[in-house]
Amino acid sequence: MAHIDLDDGIPGLPSLLRFRPETAGALSALAETLLRGPSPLARGERELIAAYVSTLNDCRFCAGSHSACAAAQLEGGMSLVEQVHADPDAAPISDKLKALLRIAAAVQRSGKDVTAEHIAAARAAGATDVEIHDTVLIAAAFCMYNRYVDGLGTSVPPDPRAYAQMAERLVAHGYGSAAPGPDPR
Amino acid sequence: MAHIDLDDGIPGLPSLLRFRPETAGALSALAETLLRGPSPLARGERELIAAYVSTLNDCRFCAGSHSACAAAQLEGGMSLVEQVHADPDAAPISDKLKALLRIAAAVQRSGKDVTAEHIAAARAAGATDVEIHDTVLIAAAFCMYNRYVDGLGTSVPPDPRAYAQMAERLVAHGYGSAAPGPDPR
Repeated sequence: MAHIDLDDGIPGLPSLLRFRPETAGALSALAETLLRGPSPLARGERELIAAYVSTLNDCRFCAGSHSACAAAQLEGGMSLVEQVHADPDAAPISDKLKALLRIAAAVQRSGKDVTAEHIAAARAAGATDVEIHDTVLIAAAFCMYNRYVDGLGTSVPPDPRAYAQMAERLVAHGYGSAAPGPDPR
Repeated sequence: MAHIDLDDGIPGLPSLLRFRPETAGALSALAETLLRGPSPLARGERELIAAYVSTLNDCRFCAGSHSACAAAQLEGGMSLVEQVHADPDAAPISDKLKALLRIAAAVQRSGKDVTAEHIAAARAAGATDVEIHDTVLIAAAFCMYNRYVDGLGTSVPPDPRAYAQMAERLVAHGYGSAAPGPDPR
């Protein structure tokens, strides 16, 4: 049961956006900006970073919904996403994305865990400063969303197929609020 | 030295807002909404939660700047803020605020660390659902800002008196960017 008086029919983050519309706009605009706004990282790659950090934080709702969003936007689909969750270093993704996921895992523990070696490895694999920046910020943001969703005891969908339906809506229409322009690539 | 090519003359979060204006607006709007928008918690109390979580995360820049913002807006000033950092339970603050800070400390570790007992204690001390919500969200948000600031290796001001000057500007003018209106859903 949720820690505060949320609508029991709505799971996860959406129940909190409905409970507190005064903060919902800023939270939705941030998600839209980070996951769908202009970035050298593809939308699927950004969703994969969000899903990976949510899995490390053991946040079922965010891991489920962002894994589905990543699967919907990456060649390889859910099979690839599950391989990344199991072992990113063994997954069939680029060396650059592996290095960025190592940075994301460090951020999940603490900002101070990101080392010069992590950054050098990402650069050696071709990552730019903006890609490193966006990775750190997305990983940090999911340390917020995950704590928000679990810290207030929100529910998860009774049927896990709900995540794929959510992803379909999110991929088509975004995270709502002041959506920045379309991804220009 | 910062992990990416930031302006060395600017410390902490502002160097990141300048580096990536595409994400700065959403981050500033969120801070403005959480710390200065409508809430049953006073601005000084919200800054105290932000400063306390930043101290637990050992984020020098955020702890310095938000401690200064809390001190500027709370009776008791920096002496009170320092007592809270040292031992919130022994500090001369209300039982309600002590219970909310215990929730914030749980969120800092993990959203899953918030228990029904934490919530019951806050309610018994007079906290409302919205106060509990805002506490969890502010604590979660500073788990993001702290990781962002430290994960990219930003600098701290060479002179700690800079924090009081920052606080003066922030208290007078806010965190910039217009806070978005309520989510229309």
